[in-house]
Amino acid sequence: MTLNPADDRFAKTISAQLGDDVLRPIAERYLEEPRQRFVGQPGVLALPRDAEEVSALVRMAAEACVPVVPYGGGTGLVGGQVVPDGPAPLIISLERMAAIRAVYPTENILVAEAGAILADVQAAAEGAGRLFPLSLAAQGSCRIGGNLATNAGGVNVLRYGNARDLCLGLEVVLPDGKIWHGLSRLRKDNTGYDLRNLMIGSEGTLGIITAAALKLFPRPKSVGTAMFQVASPEAAIDLLSLARDQAGEAVSAFELIHGQGLQFLTEVLPEVRQSFPNPPKWSVLIELGLSERQDPSDMMGAIYVAAEERGLVSDAIIAQSEAQRSELWTVRENIPEANRLIGSVSSHDISVPISRIPEFIRRGTDVVAAQGPFRVNCFGHLGDGNLHYNVFPPKGRDKAEFVGQRGAVKRAVHDLVHEFGGSVSAEHGVGRLKTGDIERYGDPVRLQAMRAIKAALDPQGIMNPGAVLAR
Amino acid sequence: MTLNPADDRFAKTISAQLGDDVLRPIAERYLEEPRQRFVGQPGVLALPRDAEEVSALVRMAAEACVPVVPYGGGTGLVGGQVVPDGPAPLIISLERMAAIRAVYPTENILVAEAGAILADVQAAAEGAGRLFPLSLAAQGSCRIGGNLATNAGGVNVLRYGNARDLCLGLEVVLPDGKIWHGLSRLRKDNTGYDLRNLMIGSEGTLGIITAAALKLFPRPKSVGTAMFQVASPEAAIDLLSLARDQAGEAVSAFELIHGQGLQFLTEVLPEVRQSFPNPPKWSVLIELGLSERQDPSDMMGAIYVAAEERGLVSDAIIAQSEAQRSELWTVRENIPEANRLIGSVSSHDISVPISRIPEFIRRGTDVVAAQGPFRVNCFGHLGDGNLHYNVFPPKGRDKAEFVGQRGAVKRAVHDLVHEFGGSVSAEHGVGRLKTGDIERYGDPVRLQAMRAIKAALDPQGIMNPGAVLAR
Repeated sequence: MTLNPADDRFAKTISAQLGDDVLRPIAERYLEEPRQRFVGQPGVLALPRDAEEVSALVRMAAEACVPVVPYGGGTGLVGGQVVPDGPAPLIISLERMAAIRAVYPTENILVAEAGAILADVQAAAEGAGRLFPLSLAAQGSCRIGGNLATNAGGVNVLRYGNARDLCLGLEVVLPDGKIWHGLSRLRKDNTGYDLRNLMIGSEGTLGIITAAALKLFPRPKSVGTAMFQVASPEAAIDLLSLARDQAGEAVSAFELIHGQGLQFLTEVLPEVRQSFPNPPKWSVLIELGLSERQDPSDMMGAIYVAAEERGLVSDAIIAQSEAQRSELWTVRENIPEANRLIGSVSSHDISVPISRIPEFIRRGTDVVAAQGPFRVNCFGHLGDGNLHYNVFPPKGRDKAEFVGQRGAVKRAVHDLVHEFGGSVSAEHGVGRLKTGDIERYGDPVRLQAMRAIKAALDPQGIMNPGAVLAR
Repeated sequence: MTLNPADDRFAKTISAQLGDDVLRPIAERYLEEPRQRFVGQPGVLALPRDAEEVSALVRMAAEACVPVVPYGGGTGLVGGQVVPDGPAPLIISLERMAAIRAVYPTENILVAEAGAILADVQAAAEGAGRLFPLSLAAQGSCRIGGNLATNAGGVNVLRYGNARDLCLGLEVVLPDGKIWHGLSRLRKDNTGYDLRNLMIGSEGTLGIITAAALKLFPRPKSVGTAMFQVASPEAAIDLLSLARDQAGEAVSAFELIHGQGLQFLTEVLPEVRQSFPNPPKWSVLIELGLSERQDPSDMMGAIYVAAEERGLVSDAIIAQSEAQRSELWTVRENIPEANRLIGSVSSHDISVPISRIPEFIRRGTDVVAAQGPFRVNCFGHLGDGNLHYNVFPPKGRDKAEFVGQRGAVKRAVHDLVHEFGGSVSAEHGVGRLKTGDIERYGDPVRLQAMRAIKAALDPQGIMNPGAVLAR
């Protein structure tokens, strides 16, 4: 269906119905995205104050056949938040709908509007003595509606799951402008198709999330953190099994660190104090979130002893204070910054079945070597099977020299991921950056079903056109 | 669209393509369901051996416009497994597809065919030193495909979630006969719409699940079980919060027991040894599944002391042996049997927001009293907000006398559930029994979206017609 641009006449339709205050001039930030791969077209920017105004806006867009792009914190890494081509869109920013509507500590539930900043949701949970575990680098600026629309991941997925696992109910404006009032606080409700999970991860192409009922958790009573030197990726995976056998769900982070990343730290961030005097080829950062009557040092010590008996580990630093704990995390958290300073040729957010990770790392080394004399830093959320697999120029040379090889490197890595039954977007989503990848690697029957669902719920194709499914 | 019956000619089409061995005479059990509300029409019964045969069968049905009903263990309580009206269906039973295809202990994943009996899936997990936590009364005969198609609940939902929370990937034959190969072993994969969760809980109306990748968990190292006498439903809910504060996710069962249920036990099952000499009005059965270095008695004792300090509990039996543990569970497990012997006027599988349960119980008492001199036994999975809310005749009288009031009682209870933002089907699904309820109580926008999705994926309407969405 032919779409029409959101132009001045359309803006007048909006202000006639909702008043001038709902519209704003379009600042640059609404047209940019962090990776600078896409630049959005300026159409009309609306800042609705409630779900009814979102509903009215979408209904007007549907009547005028104008494309709509929902806008949260703008932190997405795959270009889902800007419309770079086709008719200029109505940008609906949820930033004025940032209220925490209610907290139910007894039920471990919090109801937030879609525009609530993730850090504010976390703080509201903490204020009620509870934990909202979704945690990621952008938490100071990303908004919960965007987190849900993209099914965000982060550092606590191992224990608590992705964003979809943290949501009980949604309020959503559908592409015809109607509001689905689905803010359920029920843990069990088997009365029909799972519209909630369909909306979560649909990246604004099936509707606009306006509020969510979120799951809260008890806060851990104590935290244990340690850096273990492991013999190999195989040993790291055995260590994960062992730690989960001993500590159960308490294992909340299990991060693989590659020697290459530590060498990058030495090169470009020498002020970061490393855990071991000689950077090991492989190490693992483990964190346990414990309940009453569990001692973090005892627990971590017992894991170490059992792992050493099996020859999995050769050294460890077990944090004995908050300062030590913070030092261990500082190493992990500075690796992406070191990567940035070195400058990658190509970066990949991939997942493969956990038991295949060691073989994937071996094969990846060969695959990348066939492309050129590159260095690889692969690290990240091993417990989730999710690695950041990043390819760098040889020492002393600049990424700019290799920009022409970027496509080939990416293709080679993604082909390997596909061969291993993996995903080329573990946590960032498809957006506009990876529509070609899902055409190439996705199951064709699933893609056909996705297109049928899109056409059924958004027959005019107004919702975030070009995201997830290529035009 | 007009459907055609699965008749002899259609059977010949099948045997011509797949051989005679795929067809069977239709035994009575394929036409019955446990509650005896619906009787299926005999059409054609096929027992495919693999997903390709399921695909071929559905394709033939689609070409001939013949209705299809997938058949698992036949244990569903809402009539989703039989087609009582309209043209006679092709019944596709998954019973010959019962293999455990693979177990990946390191990944905590098991891949099973849809026809695998739930108890066999549990046993295969145990054989690998792991836990598959889905557990329900019918586990010796229900099949995992049916458990997923209905998003089954059971006794471990509090800790491990419903069936949907235990599934990573699916293989599904869609209504056009194509196979979606979605048996992912990935914990993170953000590449498009969540088809998996759409299929789970769709009760065979959007496709036929042929296999699933399931999540396994570490087995608890020790188990603590106790029966606590509580002051009120409010106190029970405070006790739940307290137990979760102390023991975190280890709280795996939290079952409310009503004095009425204990009186029924005294009346009709006096051989069941009760926990307390004088049956308390309210009690709670708690179970903890613990990891290393946690002592069940210490843990449960500490919870009791803290609860007593707050005036929540007045007595407790903490199991000191497996025999004692079993004795506590015997009380809980015999309550449904006592209910059956007493004979209910109307039974309800409901959920409400957990914090509203005490008020719901109070209001329910009045609502039921307005209908007549009935007795109420409300009990069950308090931790999930899921109560079995069952209404019985006055002492000494028979349910047969009150059968005429059944509809009014059910309506009054369901109206109250709806007023409380609850669900009239917490874990059993919609099937054919509750299509009227979701028309009455369901969000109209959600129902419209459900119908659009059904029409998009099954435009001929051949898949389990009349289930979930009324014809």
